[in-house]
Amino acid sequence: MSKLVIVGTVAFDAIETPFGKTDKILGGAATYIGLSASNFDNVNAAAVSVVGGDFPQEYLDLLTDRNINIEGIEIVKDGKTFFWSGKYHNDMNSRDTLATELNVLEHFTPVVPESYKDADIVMLGNLHPLTQQSVLDQMSKKPKLAILDTMNFWMDIAMDDLKAVLKNVDVITINDEEARQLSGEYSLVNAAKKIHEMGPQYVVIKKGEHGALLFNEGNMFYAPALPLAEVFDPTGAGDTFAGGFSGYIAKTGNISFENMKNAVIYGSALASFCVEKFGTERMLTLTDEEIFERLQQFKDLTQFEIELK
Amino acid sequence: MSKLVIVGTVAFDAIETPFGKTDKILGGAATYIGLSASNFDNVNAAAVSVVGGDFPQEYLDLLTDRNINIEGIEIVKDGKTFFWSGKYHNDMNSRDTLATELNVLEHFTPVVPESYKDADIVMLGNLHPLTQQSVLDQMSKKPKLAILDTMNFWMDIAMDDLKAVLKNVDVITINDEEARQLSGEYSLVNAAKKIHEMGPQYVVIKKGEHGALLFNEGNMFYAPALPLAEVFDPTGAGDTFAGGFSGYIAKTGNISFENMKNAVIYGSALASFCVEKFGTERMLTLTDEEIFERLQQFKDLTQFEIELK
Repeated sequence: MSKLVIVGTVAFDAIETPFGKTDKILGGAATYIGLSASNFDNVNAAAVSVVGGDFPQEYLDLLTDRNINIEGIEIVKDGKTFFWSGKYHNDMNSRDTLATELNVLEHFTPVVPESYKDADIVMLGNLHPLTQQSVLDQMSKKPKLAILDTMNFWMDIAMDDLKAVLKNVDVITINDEEARQLSGEYSLVNAAKKIHEMGPQYVVIKKGEHGALLFNEGNMFYAPALPLAEVFDPTGAGDTFAGGFSGYIAKTGNISFENMKNAVIYGSALASFCVEKFGTERMLTLTDEEIFERLQQFKDLTQFEIELK
Repeated sequence: MSKLVIVGTVAFDAIETPFGKTDKILGGAATYIGLSASNFDNVNAAAVSVVGGDFPQEYLDLLTDRNINIEGIEIVKDGKTFFWSGKYHNDMNSRDTLATELNVLEHFTPVVPESYKDADIVMLGNLHPLTQQSVLDQMSKKPKLAILDTMNFWMDIAMDDLKAVLKNVDVITINDEEARQLSGEYSLVNAAKKIHEMGPQYVVIKKGEHGALLFNEGNMFYAPALPLAEVFDPTGAGDTFAGGFSGYIAKTGNISFENMKNAVIYGSALASFCVEKFGTERMLTLTDEEIFERLQQFKDLTQFEIELK
């Protein structure tokens, strides 16, 4: 059994897409990462987060039912849960944020459960870099792999803190625009090179419908996104990718470049399910068989046999 | 020996990129397609086009030196060669057209050389759909594979003619925005489906730095573009792709979906060289060894080994 610590938001989302809109539903980075990682046997995942007294027991049960340890989810009885609301444009690649209510997140101090302080894999979901660092500081030994997700918002308001925590992680997952902002380089090859120099040995650049790139010093790997007839709701796709990536690494315990390719493919495959329905809906009905079928689709999509003289 | 007929422009280009600018240099779709296809042994390629009296013998020699038959390149002694000039923006993904002088192209009637009327493979470069159709009409037998490249311009001014010629081709190569315009569908999966219904059994959607997708009824294949530290000049990349695609099919004579995957990879590999220098410069120094090395890079970039239970 391998331990995976996940830190990130557990939240309410209200989502509007060209296909419809939702009331407040279950959301948050740690939720998506956890649900995605729960698809791997032999992984004990723990979510570290905070919610308010308004957060339904039913949602917490949904996590524990999937074998996600929630000891590290603090419940602030008289507080309100973090709430995000957004509206996607017709192309599904851009969105407007309609509301961001930090609520209990504003004073969140993550506490890693005692029994998870020796976890092999740490997945730092998109939060303030100081919060991410404080999770690393609580670990009793250096994790085998620390993975960090972040966004442009932290680059705008806390670049120094971000650069400090980057020195202490092995993998960063980031989208293409953010990679350009972080590095000041337009070419993703050059951007990855600069980001390597900031700390992470592995740089994963997420390009949405255009797939994901994995860089490690001289090596590159390109995982496509599965071309889909319909993207219903992109919310959580990036976190689901991170959950698949970190969950697969936790399951296999192998941090070679070759195995990390597989982790990127797993992340992409799981993310391709996430967008098929609103919010976490699709992830809750996912079967192993469906996942293996989809991995086979990724093989068919990318594998070719050219004889090289 | 397999015969490949290429129709398209042979032209002068003047190009400006963030890296510099050129005077009038050799350009044109048939030029790039021909140079790219000339990398395949056992392929006899013929270019069908038109130039003016101002076109240097040196450029024609450059084509014949690479075993490209130029009988079908009409020389209008008192006419001027087609001229295009463009300026790329900093992101290299968009450009402004500074000048388009049709000149001899305005009254161009393609003539397929007698000895090429039985060619197996016909590559219809980006020209008026009626010009493309007239090449098909001159063939003495139905080609094994007819490939058509086009652009949004023809959709705007000659959609009916384009739809007519589409009924007579097997493969269309088109970029993502053009696929959306032609089909009225945003999702590329749905766009490919609609375009299938217009005629072509195979739909190749070029996504520039994001690679290319090959669709054939239920099958999909995704070839990445090689992530490059620097794109020097994107001019001709799409035509170089088409030349690699059609040249590989001509060489192998195999039009199965599996082999067409390889053709897409060859097209992508050759296009990745084209953008490394201005105009045709890089294509003129390309060696077999470099091509095989690059194909190996494409394998490394995409191949993975997940054991599926």
